[in-house]
Amino acid sequence: MKLYEFAPAPNPRRVRMFLAEKGVTVETVQIDLTKGEQRSDEFRAINPAMDVPVLELDDGSRIHQVDAICRYLEESYPENPLWGRDPLERAAVNIHNHQIMLNGLMAVAEAYRNTTPMFVGRAVPGPHDYPQSPELAERGFARVANFFADMNQHFASSEYVVGDYFSIADIQTLIVIDFARWIKVKISPEQTHLQRWYDQVSARPSASA
Amino acid sequence: MKLYEFAPAPNPRRVRMFLAEKGVTVETVQIDLTKGEQRSDEFRAINPAMDVPVLELDDGSRIHQVDAICRYLEESYPENPLWGRDPLERAAVNIHNHQIMLNGLMAVAEAYRNTTPMFVGRAVPGPHDYPQSPELAERGFARVANFFADMNQHFASSEYVVGDYFSIADIQTLIVIDFARWIKVKISPEQTHLQRWYDQVSARPSASA
Repeated sequence: MKLYEFAPAPNPRRVRMFLAEKGVTVETVQIDLTKGEQRSDEFRAINPAMDVPVLELDDGSRIHQVDAICRYLEESYPENPLWGRDPLERAAVNIHNHQIMLNGLMAVAEAYRNTTPMFVGRAVPGPHDYPQSPELAERGFARVANFFADMNQHFASSEYVVGDYFSIADIQTLIVIDFARWIKVKISPEQTHLQRWYDQVSARPSASA
Repeated sequence: MKLYEFAPAPNPRRVRMFLAEKGVTVETVQIDLTKGEQRSDEFRAINPAMDVPVLELDDGSRIHQVDAICRYLEESYPENPLWGRDPLERAAVNIHNHQIMLNGLMAVAEAYRNTTPMFVGRAVPGPHDYPQSPELAERGFARVANFFADMNQHFASSEYVVGDYFSIADIQTLIVIDFARWIKVKISPEQTHLQRWYDQVSARPSASA
């Protein structure tokens, strides 16, 4: 297997951390998003959606989209499950993972892509060009603040996102919190529950994968 | 099992169609979104995220979020799989389903929620209030137009979203096309491939579930 990725970007890190939790190592190929390499003809032939990460299997098949990749890896390496250990726990992981994607990851992305000079005229990932929106940037910052507050409250009574079970939803949340530094948002001193969880999950070896 | 839903809304229809394809019937409870019943104290106790659909199991457990519900149902009723028949096909379904959610469903929702008087001050589903954004509405309409064009091109060479295999991704696409009527966007006469696919999928008995 080979992973096309860009090490500093949040989405590829989700896959690297997932792989590290599984104890699986793969060859990586860097696609420099700051140079627009994902929009080159060469990479478009690999992934017409022009995003990273992309997992290339030994038979040449390719899977992009973080969730699709991590679900495929869960099937391929079922030990140490990260998507839940029974149907109801899987449902809980899916619910939280989806909400964290919508309310956390996308909120940071909205704030970031709509304020960063590199994304002028390209506010949405993919093949179509859209202008940046100051209104959406503002809404993104407001949503990020609510996400941090909501997660702080959540971790007041829950060790991980889903009870005492470490899952893909924790990986995604960690990525969101670290991604938020790109828009200069950090855990505030009074968000002690979120900080407790963050310290705990950041200390896992996979967090530095 | 019991399904809390609102019959006219697109997200609950995804679950109804999924259940119909599986041949499973459940009791339904209507939560009238036009009257704000999802924000009542009674419903908040059922689902703090204040969205429908919610699937209530016989033991009282509840699952919300369409994807989580449909993945749970796939595990419970594995015959006639709708999330793919092998790991690579499941990856393809996951990739397309995610992209259709982001580029289709959310685009229509952005245009709809940011232009409809009912959602003044509540442009994002869930417990937090955000103002409507004319910029996001405009971007939503542009994204919907690109989504229709992209899917028309896709269906020029593919019977369903994933080759000749009918999947949850087709269900979601049908819901998006019909949801787009709410913002007065329809398949245009020259989008013959999209129309061919639409006629084919709309004719399935599950489409009127």
